[in-house]
Amino acid sequence: MLLDLIQKRQSSRDCLPKPVPRELIEKCIEAARLAPSACNSQPWHFIIVDEPALKEKLAEKIFSGPYAMNSFAKKAPVIIAVISEKSSFMAKIGGYFRGTAYYLMDIGIAVEHFILQAAELGLGTCWIGWFNERETKRLLGVPAAKKIDCIITLGYSQEPLRAKNRKPAKEIYSYNEYRGENT
Amino acid sequence: MLLDLIQKRQSSRDCLPKPVPRELIEKCIEAARLAPSACNSQPWHFIIVDEPALKEKLAEKIFSGPYAMNSFAKKAPVIIAVISEKSSFMAKIGGYFRGTAYYLMDIGIAVEHFILQAAELGLGTCWIGWFNERETKRLLGVPAAKKIDCIITLGYSQEPLRAKNRKPAKEIYSYNEYRGENT
Repeated sequence: MLLDLIQKRQSSRDCLPKPVPRELIEKCIEAARLAPSACNSQPWHFIIVDEPALKEKLAEKIFSGPYAMNSFAKKAPVIIAVISEKSSFMAKIGGYFRGTAYYLMDIGIAVEHFILQAAELGLGTCWIGWFNERETKRLLGVPAAKKIDCIITLGYSQEPLRAKNRKPAKEIYSYNEYRGENT
Repeated sequence: MLLDLIQKRQSSRDCLPKPVPRELIEKCIEAARLAPSACNSQPWHFIIVDEPALKEKLAEKIFSGPYAMNSFAKKAPVIIAVISEKSSFMAKIGGYFRGTAYYLMDIGIAVEHFILQAAELGLGTCWIGWFNERETKRLLGVPAAKKIDCIITLGYSQEPLRAKNRKPAKEIYSYNEYRGENT
């Protein structure tokens, strides 16, 4: 059941030093590939860094200094940089008039597909938004004009399942009228 | 398996006139509630519009004029407006320095949890970003300062499963270096 997978998914910050077979990584990519997106733009490209020396250098460079709070990522055997590619013309025009960068919702959807698929395969992941983007681009040959809005770590983990700290349901929905913040 | 659910999810634009039990809607909300978000901000509130007269009025108002391309939504028995709530201070600061509106990725994740859960329950959905936001706020009592980045339709559907039109896998990932657009 989906809910079991959702419960199982948690930020995994303590990976084991065990490589992840590419076959499994590509299953996660397939889940992301099939994600919906605004005007079917599919504005994403995944760079899978699993070559040990490169992975180590990358982790060293992008999770140091002001980004050291995420240095746990150095333990992950795989780091995946998610490049935000161009949205379709229609998605851009629509987003402009609506005041919403729809490509970010698209990235959220596709990466979460990846992450839920990883959970199903018994792999741990962690969403990371705080990293040195410039160094990431430099080390992976990504053109400077591109945006990397997030990175994912991937690996095996033996962390026990933690209880999720979330708002109670009644705070996040209401029927037929707004009952959210400031009401 | 997750991949079956992902395959099953498609934009459903032809709902049957059959009400959706609130118990099922609340299962979808639970899947969304447990979604991860930047700094665990959980910046979302779902307004579930299932009262028939209100739903009809809403659909009439928000999918007309320049938004008439989405008037298929009038057939859905349930329309859900997703209010983007405030992110935590840390998520906002981080997003400011990184140049990324992380709350939009959060909305993407949570709404996709909702949508995949609906697919598992045999319900059809459609992501909609193009609608009259001002009228939506007015009819549902949402403060003008809030943002509604997306709406979801929900209902039973008998549409056959369509093949997904997506980029080939080799275009959306590469190992250890960038091989995306403009390479």
